[in-house]
Amino acid sequence: MTTMRQLQSTITPEGELILALAEVPEPEAGPGEIKLRIEAAPINPSDIGLLTGAADVSQVSAVAGGISAPVPAAGMRAMAARVGQSMPCGNEGAGIIVAAGAGAEHLIGRRAAIIGGATYADFRVVKADDALLLPDGATAEQGASCFVNPLTALGFVETMRAEGHSAIIHTAAASNLGQMLVKICAADGVPLVNIVRSAEQAALLAGLGATHIIDSTAPDFMANLIAACKQTGATLAFDAIGGGQLAGQILTAMEAAINARPGGYSRYGSEVLKQVYIYGGLDIAPTVFNRGFGMAWAMGGWLLFPRMRVFGPEKFAALKQRVAAELTTTFASHYSHRVSLAGMVTPEAVAGWYARRTGQKYLVMPD
Amino acid sequence: MTTMRQLQSTITPEGELILALAEVPEPEAGPGEIKLRIEAAPINPSDIGLLTGAADVSQVSAVAGGISAPVPAAGMRAMAARVGQSMPCGNEGAGIIVAAGAGAEHLIGRRAAIIGGATYADFRVVKADDALLLPDGATAEQGASCFVNPLTALGFVETMRAEGHSAIIHTAAASNLGQMLVKICAADGVPLVNIVRSAEQAALLAGLGATHIIDSTAPDFMANLIAACKQTGATLAFDAIGGGQLAGQILTAMEAAINARPGGYSRYGSEVLKQVYIYGGLDIAPTVFNRGFGMAWAMGGWLLFPRMRVFGPEKFAALKQRVAAELTTTFASHYSHRVSLAGMVTPEAVAGWYARRTGQKYLVMPD
Repeated sequence: MTTMRQLQSTITPEGELILALAEVPEPEAGPGEIKLRIEAAPINPSDIGLLTGAADVSQVSAVAGGISAPVPAAGMRAMAARVGQSMPCGNEGAGIIVAAGAGAEHLIGRRAAIIGGATYADFRVVKADDALLLPDGATAEQGASCFVNPLTALGFVETMRAEGHSAIIHTAAASNLGQMLVKICAADGVPLVNIVRSAEQAALLAGLGATHIIDSTAPDFMANLIAACKQTGATLAFDAIGGGQLAGQILTAMEAAINARPGGYSRYGSEVLKQVYIYGGLDIAPTVFNRGFGMAWAMGGWLLFPRMRVFGPEKFAALKQRVAAELTTTFASHYSHRVSLAGMVTPEAVAGWYARRTGQKYLVMPD
Repeated sequence: MTTMRQLQSTITPEGELILALAEVPEPEAGPGEIKLRIEAAPINPSDIGLLTGAADVSQVSAVAGGISAPVPAAGMRAMAARVGQSMPCGNEGAGIIVAAGAGAEHLIGRRAAIIGGATYADFRVVKADDALLLPDGATAEQGASCFVNPLTALGFVETMRAEGHSAIIHTAAASNLGQMLVKICAADGVPLVNIVRSAEQAALLAGLGATHIIDSTAPDFMANLIAACKQTGATLAFDAIGGGQLAGQILTAMEAAINARPGGYSRYGSEVLKQVYIYGGLDIAPTVFNRGFGMAWAMGGWLLFPRMRVFGPEKFAALKQRVAAELTTTFASHYSHRVSLAGMVTPEAVAGWYARRTGQKYLVMPD
């Protein structure tokens, strides 16, 4: 039996996270399947929950093949379902098709992007139909982030259309995903309000041609946000941050903009539904809001694949097509750190990617 | 011109709330309309927002015909749309039909319940079709709370059915509304989890035959709530409290119950939608929650009349019919204080009803 390296995350019954490389059997492609040698896989915020669980990452120690960290007692309840299981990590990635089962042999030698977990490894087998074949000449780095960010950004616009809104507010808007969303909305004529957390991020988006850029650290943040809501009519927001007051502030600004329209006072606030979807947790602090935005409001989670199932396979295929066609333009990703499999689980690297800083993005390159 | 007394709430540009009786022209019934002499009108939590706005009610002073209180500067922004306007108050009430316009003359002498505002007054004119004629022998006190609480409780069950849930969690469950919901759910076979805030309230609901009663002040609150979620399968909650951690705790308990089913760990939590509607604000503190319940969750406002418009006029008429038929059983209300129009705006009375204590309910009886 041939073995390969695979990153696994394990939480022990004693309350310890072990995040380390393991030697596991190398998978083989069955009928209709392809086997990729992974060349590049991003560390997305959506990977980090599985990677570190509820561990206290400020107390990381180096162990053989990776790191360990304690899981506070308070965090163990939420971890109950995964205690003692070695979980492979990495939602997506890209690589060369090195083997294929019956019916997929013609794909050998092509480069493809995949999703489905266990991409922080030397090899991964998936169904050929689920992969996204990269255009000729595309590099693995260009294709590594084909699914999560591009489809999430496209999914926001589809959600807007499906739920009857006409503009979007996005937080952490200078992220790779946020930059894609700026380009998609410009191409599709969708008004977009970008909330960023620094003047540098604002400048970055201005350079991409973004129209509405609001810096949440500026003293006139709320006034600017209300003004942008008035200009765009936005009643839908996607929030990557989750913790703190931002989601509630967005609802408050939407309501203030609606109330500024002619029509006068309504004792329960406006009847226009104001929706914030929380799709990430860059700030793991509690969500806090004052309910000063009437009764027509909603907040909730937003997750890519359940949404895609609602949109249906035809829409999903069309969106994947668009990603492939615009891989190096709309959907270009940027990485600040490139690490090997072993290099992603040094104490320094873990501290780096765990911080989820906008502009600090890690790409895992097994070789 | 004949005048009558009407309670009005005014917030001045200088930041002062004036809540006092005014003399206004007595309204006359036009074609299809009826004129009621108001005999009884409840002070519901949903009335209090309009009554006191953002005023600091701990600083009430007596003025001619009522009280005044300062509005903190921070509260004035939310009040902008009503500054300087004298707002009549009182959502619902009951009384004798003393006059009627063309086509409604046959109703003179009947007792009816109404909704639509301005019921803290001597008289109110409404469309005859919008009133609910009380059964013979029903008192005004029995009919005073015909709309808001009964239709809200019925609306919860209709929402449950419309959105595909099969059980309900209710907070502040010992309220008049909560007691109605216990009876409705028993009659309709809907599993109901009642969250109360004291042993006395638990005993009250037990006396009504409620099955699942959870005291949020008990040390084993979360364990009991999770157990009740397991037993009922509840994935829908209606929260009257709004502030603090309760809404998030309910989502957490629902998710824990779902995760305890066979099926194992999912990195993003369960895909079962968990919904909490906040329909009141008994606690005006901020809403605070940890997002430890996966991504399939939603929180939002719930308001009676927009919902009823969605359900449609036939359903609305059927629900009103049920209220009239079960007025003295399912939909019986209890009042701890009976006050006159002038008596509702003494500093003592304002402090009493503003506190929104479960079991402390005011009925305004103009005469």
